[in-house]
Amino acid sequence: MQWVKVLGGVVGAAALLGLGIIVGHFAIPKGADSPAPSASASQDLDLKILETVMEQLDANRIRENLRELSKEPHLATSPRDEALVQLLLQRWQDPESGLDSARTTEYEVLLSFPSKEQPNRVDVVNSTGAVLFSCRQSEENVTGEQGGPDVVPPYAAYAPPGTPQGPLVYANQGSEEDFKKLQKEEVKLQDSIVLTRYGGVGRGAKAVNAAKYGVAGVLVYTDPKDINDGKSLPNETFPHSWCLPPSGVERGSYFEYFGDPLTPYLPATPSSFRLNSDNASGFPPIPIQPIGFEDAQVLLCNLGGKLAPADWQGGLGCDYNLGPGFRSNGIFPEDGQVNVSVHNRLELRNSSNVLGIIRGAVEPDRYVLYGNHRDSWVHGAVDPSTGTAVLLELSRVLGTLLKKGTWRPRRSIVFASWGAEEFGLIGSTEFTEEFFSKLQERAVAYINVDISVFANATLRVQGTPPIQSVVFSAAKQISAPGSSGLSIYDNWIRYYNRSSSVYGLVPSVGTLGAGSDYAPFIHFLGISSMDIAYTYDRSKTSARIYPTYHTAFDTFDYVDKFLDPGFSSHQAVARTAGSVLLRLSDSLFLPLNVSDYSETLRSFLQAAENLRALLEQHNISFGPLVTAVETFEGAATSFNQRIATLREGTPDPLQVRMINDQLMLLERTFLNSQAFPEERYYSHVLWAPRTGSVATFPGLSNAYSQAENTGHEPAAWAEVQRQLSIVVAALEGAAATLRPVADL
Amino acid sequence: MQWVKVLGGVVGAAALLGLGIIVGHFAIPKGADSPAPSASASQDLDLKILETVMEQLDANRIRENLRELSKEPHLATSPRDEALVQLLLQRWQDPESGLDSARTTEYEVLLSFPSKEQPNRVDVVNSTGAVLFSCRQSEENVTGEQGGPDVVPPYAAYAPPGTPQGPLVYANQGSEEDFKKLQKEEVKLQDSIVLTRYGGVGRGAKAVNAAKYGVAGVLVYTDPKDINDGKSLPNETFPHSWCLPPSGVERGSYFEYFGDPLTPYLPATPSSFRLNSDNASGFPPIPIQPIGFEDAQVLLCNLGGKLAPADWQGGLGCDYNLGPGFRSNGIFPEDGQVNVSVHNRLELRNSSNVLGIIRGAVEPDRYVLYGNHRDSWVHGAVDPSTGTAVLLELSRVLGTLLKKGTWRPRRSIVFASWGAEEFGLIGSTEFTEEFFSKLQERAVAYINVDISVFANATLRVQGTPPIQSVVFSAAKQISAPGSSGLSIYDNWIRYYNRSSSVYGLVPSVGTLGAGSDYAPFIHFLGISSMDIAYTYDRSKTSARIYPTYHTAFDTFDYVDKFLDPGFSSHQAVARTAGSVLLRLSDSLFLPLNVSDYSETLRSFLQAAENLRALLEQHNISFGPLVTAVETFEGAATSFNQRIATLREGTPDPLQVRMINDQLMLLERTFLNSQAFPEERYYSHVLWAPRTGSVATFPGLSNAYSQAENTGHEPAAWAEVQRQLSIVVAALEGAAATLRPVADL
Repeated sequence: MQWVKVLGGVVGAAALLGLGIIVGHFAIPKGADSPAPSASASQDLDLKILETVMEQLDANRIRENLRELSKEPHLATSPRDEALVQLLLQRWQDPESGLDSARTTEYEVLLSFPSKEQPNRVDVVNSTGAVLFSCRQSEENVTGEQGGPDVVPPYAAYAPPGTPQGPLVYANQGSEEDFKKLQKEEVKLQDSIVLTRYGGVGRGAKAVNAAKYGVAGVLVYTDPKDINDGKSLPNETFPHSWCLPPSGVERGSYFEYFGDPLTPYLPATPSSFRLNSDNASGFPPIPIQPIGFEDAQVLLCNLGGKLAPADWQGGLGCDYNLGPGFRSNGIFPEDGQVNVSVHNRLELRNSSNVLGIIRGAVEPDRYVLYGNHRDSWVHGAVDPSTGTAVLLELSRVLGTLLKKGTWRPRRSIVFASWGAEEFGLIGSTEFTEEFFSKLQERAVAYINVDISVFANATLRVQGTPPIQSVVFSAAKQISAPGSSGLSIYDNWIRYYNRSSSVYGLVPSVGTLGAGSDYAPFIHFLGISSMDIAYTYDRSKTSARIYPTYHTAFDTFDYVDKFLDPGFSSHQAVARTAGSVLLRLSDSLFLPLNVSDYSETLRSFLQAAENLRALLEQHNISFGPLVTAVETFEGAATSFNQRIATLREGTPDPLQVRMINDQLMLLERTFLNSQAFPEERYYSHVLWAPRTGSVATFPGLSNAYSQAENTGHEPAAWAEVQRQLSIVVAALEGAAATLRPVADL
Repeated sequence: MQWVKVLGGVVGAAALLGLGIIVGHFAIPKGADSPAPSASASQDLDLKILETVMEQLDANRIRENLRELSKEPHLATSPRDEALVQLLLQRWQDPESGLDSARTTEYEVLLSFPSKEQPNRVDVVNSTGAVLFSCRQSEENVTGEQGGPDVVPPYAAYAPPGTPQGPLVYANQGSEEDFKKLQKEEVKLQDSIVLTRYGGVGRGAKAVNAAKYGVAGVLVYTDPKDINDGKSLPNETFPHSWCLPPSGVERGSYFEYFGDPLTPYLPATPSSFRLNSDNASGFPPIPIQPIGFEDAQVLLCNLGGKLAPADWQGGLGCDYNLGPGFRSNGIFPEDGQVNVSVHNRLELRNSSNVLGIIRGAVEPDRYVLYGNHRDSWVHGAVDPSTGTAVLLELSRVLGTLLKKGTWRPRRSIVFASWGAEEFGLIGSTEFTEEFFSKLQERAVAYINVDISVFANATLRVQGTPPIQSVVFSAAKQISAPGSSGLSIYDNWIRYYNRSSSVYGLVPSVGTLGAGSDYAPFIHFLGISSMDIAYTYDRSKTSARIYPTYHTAFDTFDYVDKFLDPGFSSHQAVARTAGSVLLRLSDSLFLPLNVSDYSETLRSFLQAAENLRALLEQHNISFGPLVTAVETFEGAATSFNQRIATLREGTPDPLQVRMINDQLMLLERTFLNSQAFPEERYYSHVLWAPRTGSVATFPGLSNAYSQAENTGHEPAAWAEVQRQLSIVVAALEGAAATLRPVADL
């Protein structure tokens, strides 16, 4: 694990000189808004500092961070969560290795918890109501860590209370198609309880889809086929392997939106306007409860009715039938029913974010943000503590350089530990609401490192196109963990790659959904964002995610023994994210390549070509979209040429600032608050949720599907035209932002 | 009329030296985005240049501009309007006195015109349908300019076609209260034709209000009491005085919103999505036609029914009765009815803006915008050509200095001539839609000079608080027209003043509604905006506006003989607006005093105190609003202190830029796209339309009124709380933007 040699030659000779210059330049006064000497305004990224940071990021310290962070359960707003707030504050206020300042911001947010007095239950009952079988109310205490009072029992957060009872039906993953298929097979869904497996659609969607068919309650479990590559026996699972034990249950939020449910678009201060929780939307319409596959097996392997389709079958060692009700030769009477008792409660709780700041020397009003959530479902060793352990190590290394006077970034760096992410990205969303204007004006980029290590095989990055180049630059200069001798980049390209029309074969950067705290930054604020992790070799496992995800088995030993022994993947992520952070904070020109959006736009345009004929049948002209994409491409190419020309000369600080403003603000130009009136927060016309089947601009794709599904009503086609115009206006606006600034 | 002496002493000695420095610094290369030498980055406003500009602004050239601009009618999109586009382009592309570049942008917008084949008519008919009396279809050709084929007949733009007929009722100004009073007096409104006077409420509102009572058609006229200080005889009116002749009719747009009616939030490019005009909203629901007071007198003085209330009486020399129908001893039969035939047509037309740009030497990506509309209803000498004549003279003076190499502004200046303002600020609104992102990122301020001279008495300025100080600075250094020897400022304060808690007695700056092209800049984009004009001595006239407003009598001679003989008021406005423009474009620190918002907030807060008790009865805490105002005040005060400290030293260019970004963007922080979901474009939480009676934050005031009017429903009180939270969040966000930039 060494900082790769390519740098050695380059910086070797310049190192001492460089350090001298830095020490000279960065003896910065510490008052608020204290000026940097203007001499430093033309300082570029210092490769020696970058090398020092890479070297100092320590795998063992990350391991010790993880041990501390995950030693107790720290559910959002629990005493241990609050203790970790203090731990973060202490670290970031440390006189030897802390940041310039650190503070907390607190929000009063609506969370959902199971009742302690009335545990949620899932029972099989006979026609007289006698209980024949009960599912576990907690996971088996396998390692001694699953039994404490702070281990929250498995539940579906925000599922409403209720005690529905009915015959059991198996509904596969609970997708719309799954319920349609059951209806086609004439399986009675009205007043039934459906058993679904995790996967396919979001958690909340299972209940939303079910309720449309009159289903009374929903169970969810994790099938061993989907998570354990089929393994299901106790001696095949944790602590004997990384696999999920039979009693393990994935907890999770079933809220459909993100942010505090009661204060959309407003920071959840104590005095803020709040929706009445009866009026709040996005909660599951019917009770749901998750169970382990050990219990699911008892229910599912005794179901009657027709045999479920082949792709509905799983790894429980029996044929899965559809129901309704139990089979005649099973352990339950045929008219046995399932009773689901959910006693979840909504509670207003105080949740904290912790913010730590390193003041920029030259442009303190430009912010590079780096964050992760702090709250977990149980011990949360992997999720989120692998990320927080890296965050603490990276802030320690940078803080130490800062406190020694060795270094200060050009731009400000903001580290953040978000609260209540597991309930729906709540802390980060409230932050973007509270600091909306400031972030819109000044945020350069947001780096998210949530689960930093899913597995040891390869880097995995999701982000918007402008961040591709800086991630590539970083990944090319860091050794991959293991003995391959490859750089992270060269290892990465073996696992995830695509053929780029511009660059040839490159690693593929994924798109950003709403799976972690980057969502409000990209979708609500239009800030270039990314999520960085190490992950699987997909040829070796088909697990949906790491198997103990959101269970009480996600512990320090799980990481230390199975996920990343030696913590070299943690170190690789720390180095990659740290290098990206330094490049964004210290480079003279922001390392965001806006012209990398051209490939995305081209691919969206190509996909849209499939719609062209039908669009033109409805008198919707396709030409303006083609022109708008070409306009953007041309503007981006010319813009990059102007940067290249400037780099050759000695640009003055204002010229650099003007270019950097264009780079920073390009992502903002894709926002349109009128684009998706039905969505909450989503306003980025390129990355809003796409439900349509055509992989093009989401608004266009969705409106097109709607027009097809509604039998081609004129109003639906008008919406297609409107979405097309919104995209065209956004692309023209984006191109305008990249043009020479005195051209209107 | 001389540039006041106060400057003479100050700049006298430094003048030659100053000029030398300027010539040295501003020999700027002319390529796109060409860099300014960094030496000029610390250049402040050059007082010698300012003096030169003030001296060169020539009253006679403004007069000649006006003569040319108003010599023919130039209704939006008419051939003469297009000819003026070419005139502007030619002026701005002139090699001796033009700008760096000029171009047009064209939009395809929905306008409304009367039919040439079927003129609109207003007739009195008897019970057999025979026509007893017909109103004029055009104004009397008094000066030879009212008769040409390009004089559009009087009409109500966007009023729907139709031929309603019914008994006549007098409805005063057509306000909600007026119709309530008629209802109380049991005057039958169903299927009637109502006659209303201009004033009180907006044009479109008269039809909207009337339609609620089943009224079939509306007439509107201008009462001599409201416009002519009572004068109504031909020999008392134009061309014998500035008064409106008896046949004069105010035209106008009756569209309720602004911008192209078919493309809200999208630039009206040819291919843009368009609402079907049947689905478009904001048009009057029933036919309307404006008439002259000569005809109104025949109708109104023959009305029957009860005597109208005292404050409904006017200047037509008879008692005004309410109707319905005619009086028994008049010239019409009692059962005579009024037939209104409206044949207006909606038409898609191409309307152009003209944009002229002077590239900034140091910060070309900061734009100071200066604009006025070009289109008129008829000759439009006053409206808008008094403004355009000033615009052309100001751009000539600056262009000449530019072309000579004497001067180049620090920031870019954008001159604009908007199309189709009279139909609803259409050109400017489409411009803000097309360049939304760029303007949001880069626009420093918008200066609007529409009608530059209403009368000769005093300056009148409307704007947001941050522009007060720069207008005061400018006005203090320019002589007022006339022989008073006072500065424009000292003259102004005699007519419009208020007692400021900060400054003592100062001229009062009015607020910005939606009366001219500043509306999209302030309400939709949050750009600090102002409107500048010379206006009346209110002790000498109570005319609603200058009497020939929107009539065929608004001609060059009208201005030359009555409004501003000698054009000294035009020159005063040119100097004031020119000085403001130069100060905004050339000052090192932007001359926007954001702390002047504190007085506004304080006054809103004090007004809100009246609601406090009732709010707290409904569990809405008032404290957070008080705290938020105090937070803003504190942040603004500290911010100004930091600027003062920086001014004492030698701030580097980036420090100045950071401060200026805060100054520029403060206004943006008051926007909230969620605040007013029912409004179009309005998103500034301090300046949205206020219908509530309490003079506080408009959203709060309106929601409070609504809660009172709906009998205190919980949902209405929830909206009060929501609006309060929106204001608090905006003020906290505004304060955050003013804090030291590295404090989060």
